[in-house]
Amino acid sequence: MDILFYHPSFDCVRWGELLTATLPQARVRAWAPGDVAHADYALVWDPPPEMLQRRPLKGVFILGAGVDAILQRLATCPEMLLPEVPLYRLEDTGMARQMQEYAVSQTLHWFRRFDDYRLAQQTARWEPLPPYARDGFTVGVMGAGVLGTRVAESLAEWAFPVRTWSRSRKKRVKITSFAGADELPAFLQATRVLINLLPSTPETAGLINETLLAQLPAGAFVMNLARGAHLVEDDLLAALNRGHIKGAMLDVFAREPLPPDNPLWQHPRVAITPHVAAATLEEEAIAFIAEIIARRERGERPAGEIDRVRGY
Amino acid sequence: MDILFYHPSFDCVRWGELLTATLPQARVRAWAPGDVAHADYALVWDPPPEMLQRRPLKGVFILGAGVDAILQRLATCPEMLLPEVPLYRLEDTGMARQMQEYAVSQTLHWFRRFDDYRLAQQTARWEPLPPYARDGFTVGVMGAGVLGTRVAESLAEWAFPVRTWSRSRKKRVKITSFAGADELPAFLQATRVLINLLPSTPETAGLINETLLAQLPAGAFVMNLARGAHLVEDDLLAALNRGHIKGAMLDVFAREPLPPDNPLWQHPRVAITPHVAAATLEEEAIAFIAEIIARRERGERPAGEIDRVRGY
Repeated sequence: MDILFYHPSFDCVRWGELLTATLPQARVRAWAPGDVAHADYALVWDPPPEMLQRRPLKGVFILGAGVDAILQRLATCPEMLLPEVPLYRLEDTGMARQMQEYAVSQTLHWFRRFDDYRLAQQTARWEPLPPYARDGFTVGVMGAGVLGTRVAESLAEWAFPVRTWSRSRKKRVKITSFAGADELPAFLQATRVLINLLPSTPETAGLINETLLAQLPAGAFVMNLARGAHLVEDDLLAALNRGHIKGAMLDVFAREPLPPDNPLWQHPRVAITPHVAAATLEEEAIAFIAEIIARRERGERPAGEIDRVRGY
Repeated sequence: MDILFYHPSFDCVRWGELLTATLPQARVRAWAPGDVAHADYALVWDPPPEMLQRRPLKGVFILGAGVDAILQRLATCPEMLLPEVPLYRLEDTGMARQMQEYAVSQTLHWFRRFDDYRLAQQTARWEPLPPYARDGFTVGVMGAGVLGTRVAESLAEWAFPVRTWSRSRKKRVKITSFAGADELPAFLQATRVLINLLPSTPETAGLINETLLAQLPAGAFVMNLARGAHLVEDDLLAALNRGHIKGAMLDVFAREPLPPDNPLWQHPRVAITPHVAAATLEEEAIAFIAEIIARRERGERPAGEIDRVRGY
C-alpha cells in the first residue's frame, strides 16, 4: 500500500515510521513535484494543486481538524481532487481534550473573576468582589461536532447551564440543543460565555459580528477556538470598548500571525494565544488514520467522511 | 433550642431565618455583651472571649473552614470555652467545589502556558511554545482533608499525576499518598504544581520556606489556598526571582489585606486574589449545621469534631 505525505512542517520520516509500526504493509513517501507514481492514500496539509489531481485515491487525510482551507481551494480549482475520493479530517485524536482544557480553564477563570482580580492587582487593590451566580453563568457552545460536544460536556460537569447551537438538533444529557438560524436568537439571549467551535464554511463566515454580539447579555464573554473567519474583530473590539462584552479569549484570527499593530494585543480585557488551542497529536492521529485505512481496505465506507458541499 | 450567633459581617436575621426553616425548634439570637441567658449551641466567627465562657454548650460551630484563629485564642485564654464543648468547623459546605474551581482553572492555565502567552501578549509577540508533557506535570497537594482530597481528585480527572502529603497515610484511587515528615522530600521532588491546603497549626507555620521550595523541581508552580502563615513570602519571592519557581497564585497572606507596598503585587509571575478562594455558602452551611445539631439532639457524637490538641 502506497501512501503519499505532504506537510509544510511535519516530519515525513517520523510519520512514516509511526504509520508502518501500525500498518506494516504501508510504504510512506514524501511527495515531491513530478511524483505521479502510484498511491492508495494521501496525508496532507495545504497540498500543491498538482499533487492529488487525477489520482483515484482510496482516501485523503487532512492533518488537522479544519477542512475550510482545502475546501476553499477545491472550490476554485476542482481538478485538484477527483470528486469521488473520500476526504477525512482528524476529528478528535487528542484535540478534544485540549479544547476542554482551554475552555474549562478560561470559563472558570472568568466565573471566579480572576480577570477582575488581575486588573485590581495592577494597582495593588485588595477588593473581594461578589461572586457570580452559577445558574446565571450559562455557557453557549456554537458547533456541536466532536469538539463542541466534548467541550460542552466538560463544562456541564461543573454544573454550569450549558447549551449548544448547531445546524441540526442534538440530544445530549444536561445540554440544551438549539438548532438552525431560527433558534440562534434564543440561544444567544442567555449565553454568558460564548464558545465558538463551528466549522468554517461560507455560511458561518463573519457570523460573530455586531448583530450577534448585541444579542448576548451585557457582561458576556467570547472565546474563539475555531477560525478567525468566524469573528469580525472590529465588531468585537467595539463591543468590548462599549463594555457590552466583558472579556474575550482568542486563539484564531483573520490574519495569522496576528499583526503587531492589531489593537486586540493591547486590550486589557482580551487574552490572546497563537493558534495553539489544539495541536495534532501524532500518536492519536496515526491511530485514527490507521483505523480508517483498515476499514477502507475491508471495503467499508467508514463514518467521518467530509461532505464537500456542506463544508464539514 | 437556643442558638447564639456572632459574626462580624454575616446577617444574624438571615441566618436565623434559614436555620429555623430547617430546624423549626431553633430560636436564634444575636449575642450582645452582657447576654448570659441560656443557650444550647453557638454559631460564631472571632467571638469575644466572654461570649462562650462557662457555657455548657452542646456544640460550637466556627463559620469557616479554618479553626486556627479560635484555637490560638483558646491557647492564650483557655477559659473562653469549656474543654468538653464540641467544636465544629464548616468542613465542606460548598467550599470544596470552589477550591476545585480555583485549583483546576489555574493548574490548566499554567499547563497550557497561558501565563507565558500573557507575557508575550504585552509585547505583541506571536510565538507558539512547545506544550508541556502531561506525565511530567505532577500536582502535589499538601493536606488531605476534605478540601485537599477533593481538589486532588478533580485534578486526577484531567489525567495529571496527582499526589498528596498529609500526617497519616491516605488511600485514594489514582492519588499517591505521602505521609509524614520523612516522606516530604520524596513528595516534593517531582511536584510541578504545589497546592497548599494544609490546616494552619504551629507545626505547619512557615513550612513553605526556602528549604522546601528548593526541593521542588526547577520551573515549579506554587498555589496557596490555606493560610498566609504557611508561606514565607520573602523566600517565595527570592525563588521566583531566581527563576527556580516559575509562577505562583496566592489567595492568603501573612498580612491581610496585603499591604500595597508588598512586592508580590507587582511580580509578573504572581497572581493575587483577596482571600476569596472559598467563601462560606449560606445554604450549604445551614444544611451542614442542622445535620450535626439533629445528631447531637439524638444523643450522637457526630464525626468532624475538632481535636483541639492536634489543631484541626
